[in-house]
Amino acid sequence: MQASKGTRGQFAYDGLDRTLHERARLGIMTSLMSHPKGIYFPQLKTLCDLTDGNLKRHLDVLCEEGLVAMVKAPVGNRTQTLYKILPKGKARFVSYLEELQRVLNDATKTLPGLASIPKTSKT
Amino acid sequence: MQASKGTRGQFAYDGLDRTLHERARLGIMTSLMSHPKGIYFPQLKTLCDLTDGNLKRHLDVLCEEGLVAMVKAPVGNRTQTLYKILPKGKARFVSYLEELQRVLNDATKTLPGLASIPKTSKT
Repeated sequence: MQASKGTRGQFAYDGLDRTLHERARLGIMTSLMSHPKGIYFPQLKTLCDLTDGNLKRHLDVLCEEGLVAMVKAPVGNRTQTLYKILPKGKARFVSYLEELQRVLNDATKTLPGLASIPKTSKT
Repeated sequence: MQASKGTRGQFAYDGLDRTLHERARLGIMTSLMSHPKGIYFPQLKTLCDLTDGNLKRHLDVLCEEGLVAMVKAPVGNRTQTLYKILPKGKARFVSYLEELQRVLNDATKTLPGLASIPKTSKT
């Protein structure tokens, strides 16, 4: 019934890193990627539309894996927490994005309207 | 420290459907999308590099949600199980892929080498 038997693991997508392939963490990493100088906790909460507890929990995972750094910074007469993507985080996220692009390319091959997405060029 | 305060939920990605945003199910749906006439269980297992139990468990979720159909089909003197993507499954998956494209566009804006990915055109 199908065009070919296909190769083992052709659609396994092992590059979809379990730490990053989680909706909230994907939003956090994209926010941090878009703000290379860092984002304060309340603004990250707004951008990702997460509760304090949820955002903290996911940031802890990303910090523990060495992908994101937390810096206590003075803002006026208070201290706020700034989060920043680390080089290791950026590298892991770029690999993840390349695998996502592969999923999109594979999935849209049969869709004329979506088939125009070109392959991601390696940097 | 950041360019702008941003809008609420700008990076929330609510369109990342929880059923589909799971690595194995993403592989299964992409395999089925690439084989619109259906795939037999053993070939799907090879393409997604999953164990019998894992593949069955994820297919059950997709069938229960009405995204995938299971058909018992005779192959020689045996019966094999054919899996096929349903119109509802295709529609849900296309919406999911459009949200994935949005993630890629947002995340790669700051990456010169990956910034050439155009926006997905609606069909």
